[in-house]
Amino acid sequence: MQPEHYRSGQNIFKEGEPGNKMYVVKEGEVELSVHGKLAVSIGKGGIFGEMVLIDSKPRSATAIAKTDCDLGPIDEARFLELVHQKPSFALEVMKVLVERLRLMDERT
Amino acid sequence: MQPEHYRSGQNIFKEGEPGNKMYVVKEGEVELSVHGKLAVSIGKGGIFGEMVLIDSKPRSATAIAKTDCDLGPIDEARFLELVHQKPSFALEVMKVLVERLRLMDERT
Repeated sequence: MQPEHYRSGQNIFKEGEPGNKMYVVKEGEVELSVHGKLAVSIGKGGIFGEMVLIDSKPRSATAIAKTDCDLGPIDEARFLELVHQKPSFALEVMKVLVERLRLMDERT
Repeated sequence: MQPEHYRSGQNIFKEGEPGNKMYVVKEGEVELSVHGKLAVSIGKGGIFGEMVLIDSKPRSATAIAKTDCDLGPIDEARFLELVHQKPSFALEVMKVLVERLRLMDERT
């Protein structure tokens, strides 16, 4: 899929919106916030936005480009292809989800 | 792996302990609590304890048998085998993690 470019401060997606793709950060940094609070910062090589591909519910967070960014979008078809062909990708997605769960556990 | 049986009220694992397996609930119901607060109830067909297999950190929750339970343990070798051979298993684990993340988002 075509890479997407965002300028610093630009909105990538908003909490509560429907969504149909996740992103790999190719360059730059992205900030995710939940209920208006900064949740996590995602740098080069990191992924975000994967939750909508897993449960088809609205975006759980707002994503904003913290710096100018190049993002690699992954839609549902490509996501399923990767899960089927690259178990390491599935494990990476699980790791990201577990990291966020642990982070939230620490905050509660 | 051999199924494990727990009596109602029995401890399966405790928050902060190391762990090396996840469980599928074959019969009965299991309660997970985090920092002493009930987090989620897992019924027949549900899975829990998967986080230690993904990031090798200590248990993030305490698991107690709410009723008499039959559990199917899955160790790391079997977990990796399943992720490689059954993409549907990987997707199921992701779904469970996302469900818990959404639940925690709602509570924050």
